[in-house]
Amino acid sequence: MVSQKKYLSNKLANISKWYNEIVEKAGLAEHAPVKGCMIIKPYGYALWENTQNILDAWFKKDGVQNAYFPIFIPYSLLQKEKKHISGFSPELAIVTTAGGEKLAQPLVVRPTSETIMYQTFRNWISSYKDLPLKINQWCNVVRWEKRTYLFLRTSEFLWQEGHTVHKNDVEAREMVMKALMWYKDFYEKYLAISVFVGEKSASERFAGAKQTFAIELVIPTGKALQGATSHNLGQNFSKNFDITYTDEQNTIHNPFQTSWGISTRSIGGLILSHGDDNGLILPPKIAPLQVIIFPIYKNDDVINQTIDLQIKRIKTTLEKSGIRHSIDERRDKTIGFRISESEIRGIPIRIEIGPAEIEKKVIIISRRDTLEKQKISPDNAIEFINESMEKMQNDLLRRSYENKNRLTAEVESFEEFKTIMNTNRQFIRAFWCESATCEEKIKEITKASTRVCELNELEKKGDGLCIYCNNKAHRKWLFAQSY
Amino acid sequence: MVSQKKYLSNKLANISKWYNEIVEKAGLAEHAPVKGCMIIKPYGYALWENTQNILDAWFKKDGVQNAYFPIFIPYSLLQKEKKHISGFSPELAIVTTAGGEKLAQPLVVRPTSETIMYQTFRNWISSYKDLPLKINQWCNVVRWEKRTYLFLRTSEFLWQEGHTVHKNDVEAREMVMKALMWYKDFYEKYLAISVFVGEKSASERFAGAKQTFAIELVIPTGKALQGATSHNLGQNFSKNFDITYTDEQNTIHNPFQTSWGISTRSIGGLILSHGDDNGLILPPKIAPLQVIIFPIYKNDDVINQTIDLQIKRIKTTLEKSGIRHSIDERRDKTIGFRISESEIRGIPIRIEIGPAEIEKKVIIISRRDTLEKQKISPDNAIEFINESMEKMQNDLLRRSYENKNRLTAEVESFEEFKTIMNTNRQFIRAFWCESATCEEKIKEITKASTRVCELNELEKKGDGLCIYCNNKAHRKWLFAQSY
Repeated sequence: MVSQKKYLSNKLANISKWYNEIVEKAGLAEHAPVKGCMIIKPYGYALWENTQNILDAWFKKDGVQNAYFPIFIPYSLLQKEKKHISGFSPELAIVTTAGGEKLAQPLVVRPTSETIMYQTFRNWISSYKDLPLKINQWCNVVRWEKRTYLFLRTSEFLWQEGHTVHKNDVEAREMVMKALMWYKDFYEKYLAISVFVGEKSASERFAGAKQTFAIELVIPTGKALQGATSHNLGQNFSKNFDITYTDEQNTIHNPFQTSWGISTRSIGGLILSHGDDNGLILPPKIAPLQVIIFPIYKNDDVINQTIDLQIKRIKTTLEKSGIRHSIDERRDKTIGFRISESEIRGIPIRIEIGPAEIEKKVIIISRRDTLEKQKISPDNAIEFINESMEKMQNDLLRRSYENKNRLTAEVESFEEFKTIMNTNRQFIRAFWCESATCEEKIKEITKASTRVCELNELEKKGDGLCIYCNNKAHRKWLFAQSY
Repeated sequence: MVSQKKYLSNKLANISKWYNEIVEKAGLAEHAPVKGCMIIKPYGYALWENTQNILDAWFKKDGVQNAYFPIFIPYSLLQKEKKHISGFSPELAIVTTAGGEKLAQPLVVRPTSETIMYQTFRNWISSYKDLPLKINQWCNVVRWEKRTYLFLRTSEFLWQEGHTVHKNDVEAREMVMKALMWYKDFYEKYLAISVFVGEKSASERFAGAKQTFAIELVIPTGKALQGATSHNLGQNFSKNFDITYTDEQNTIHNPFQTSWGISTRSIGGLILSHGDDNGLILPPKIAPLQVIIFPIYKNDDVINQTIDLQIKRIKTTLEKSGIRHSIDERRDKTIGFRISESEIRGIPIRIEIGPAEIEKKVIIISRRDTLEKQKISPDNAIEFINESMEKMQNDLLRRSYENKNRLTAEVESFEEFKTIMNTNRQFIRAFWCESATCEEKIKEITKASTRVCELNELEKKGDGLCIYCNNKAHRKWLFAQSY
């Protein structure tokens, strides 16, 4: 059976090739007839639906309300915040003709919705009683890309964008952190990916933001993937869009704003993080299918009926326990083929029941991550499956945490920095003076950009020296080559 | 209190004005800074989320899988089905510039996704084992409109589009009917709107379809609103897009296809169907909030605490019963204001608790549709609320059914037809010879188009005379002026 899986590339030897094969063979997504765009196939889309369900419940519990704003933004509106438009300008898709006529003003297909939302928020807010305003939308956005990488970089992608308005800076900062922690929890507790969390440098900030915080994933090759962002917009937009509120004393103020988002890119991170040479590995909490059952039939009707009966019993208990499951009883595919297919698809738990198992009154249960097989009495199946899924979820997170640490180096000299980036690519934690010049130089020489200054490092007044220029530096930053 | 509600227009006297006021004042939607587009506000969007949850569960139970296809369609792809492109051509929004460059080939913003999906389905299908293929997507689509009517007619709207592929005509027809019945059930059982269901005439068919079936709503003014459609595409698209499968005998065939959709327009139908001069009326099963509780505080802390305690108790039982509820305890608004606001928003059940109620150990419960108040012991509250919601749901559907029948006339002469359309606008059921010429003439003279030939009428070989030309006609059709 092992030989059957070997048509997949070795993950670490050629992760790009491996990634493309997995995305295709697991039925997650494919390239669309339109350059730069992707088709998210049912199995991939189910991962996004699970993501939506988890996060949406958290947002709603916090009083965030879903709404929907148009996909088209008048070009003039986008120009209201200078940094914003200059940041997005190179990536815009523009509608110039509609309803058979050339448009007097071109319409931009939203790359993000700050401008169209805030133009409207202006009318929704007049008094402190209207605050906080917390709006979210699940939608598609377009940022034109020359090179496509399914899930990781596509011209159109799906995301959620939260936009909130607050009376004061303190509340806005709290919201920025709350959103950031939702994303951290989602990555760690559901996707079982241990992440770095921190603030972006000025040059890596969202166009128009005062501060940008991000979730950074450490991919097994030592590269970085930005997993989600949360922006403190300060009063930048509220001033440019003339959003005001009157306080209890009837004084007029510009409110403080935040925006935060996570996209279908998270699915790319998920694939890269856990998969192995046999295929995808999905953490049970996010897996569309948690258990797959394989009957192994023989040329014996009596035995086959017993197998079916056993499967029916297990199916009933799985249903009762709310475990997402499926039975693969295709007779035109060998059990070897079906098993390696289920491994490519990363289904957490596999059950096999054949004549030998019936005879011994057991079923075989295996975990996708360890590939260990266990013989279990059917009576204990649910308990064992639940335990296995919990263990698997925890093990994946622990391994991700270990990988993250293993792939993160602390260096003291720029020589060391360069050596690591050129040979054994990793994340690097190092002092940096926070000048854009050094940041740019480092990137030019090593292709590594600043990822974040970690949260626990933010308030530090350390006594270090910049890894590049040797001038005084107060905080350590994470550097990495990025996707 | 009654006087406070009277700033709304009289519904039947000026339904357009009334509609716009309700959409605005209930906080459902508003016009966007982009002409023709709308912003769906949280309360309106919650109706759409409920719609999604209900229908999505039905689709999934039937094995329909959600996926996501790109918003951009190469113009050339859209041209592959001649009728399809000519039907949609006048409404297209076209992207000509992207990523700072003029595109070699313009991209159409999807008006519907047949073409981009079927180009891909072609690669997904090779054998009969790949069929049926049932794909659905929830997304935004764009069909350019000159005149906007929130929810009812906007250049961008949200919808669901189901697309299925089948081995044979019988299966495809079954699927078309199944989707149609989902929509009928949704309108009747959830939106409490009694609808007409039938087949569209050749001229009203979806561009590229063999048959189009539709749900038609009878608006209280006698106008028609198309509520959802289900198309039998036959082999039109599979032939044009070269989709083929091999059967058990290895013979190659073009499969049979269907597509079906319902949009945010359904929310427009909901508003128009049940509202009255006091505002919106939402059927409990679709209402984002089913119960609103109003404490009526007095200048007496002891009594106020008792009120709060009582409300807390009721809140706990509402939560346990899974009833969607909210408490409006704003002290800066009068109870009169708060009540009329809740009536404008159409919240099914209202609870009032003030000092008088505390003293008498009762709470006041009223239904939004009847506005009847009842004094109930708090111990019986949940039972009473559940009963009231069930009654309200049924009563709304019954009234909708009665309205539909009251507003549908059977006529025998074209004079009568004209009189009705010119004076007391209604639906008209009449024999029609099914020639496009008569259909066009009737529309020209009366502004009434054919809506559907009802399902129970489809197979009839009646012995009638066309209402317009007096030639032989076999089936009765419904005619109405439409939105």
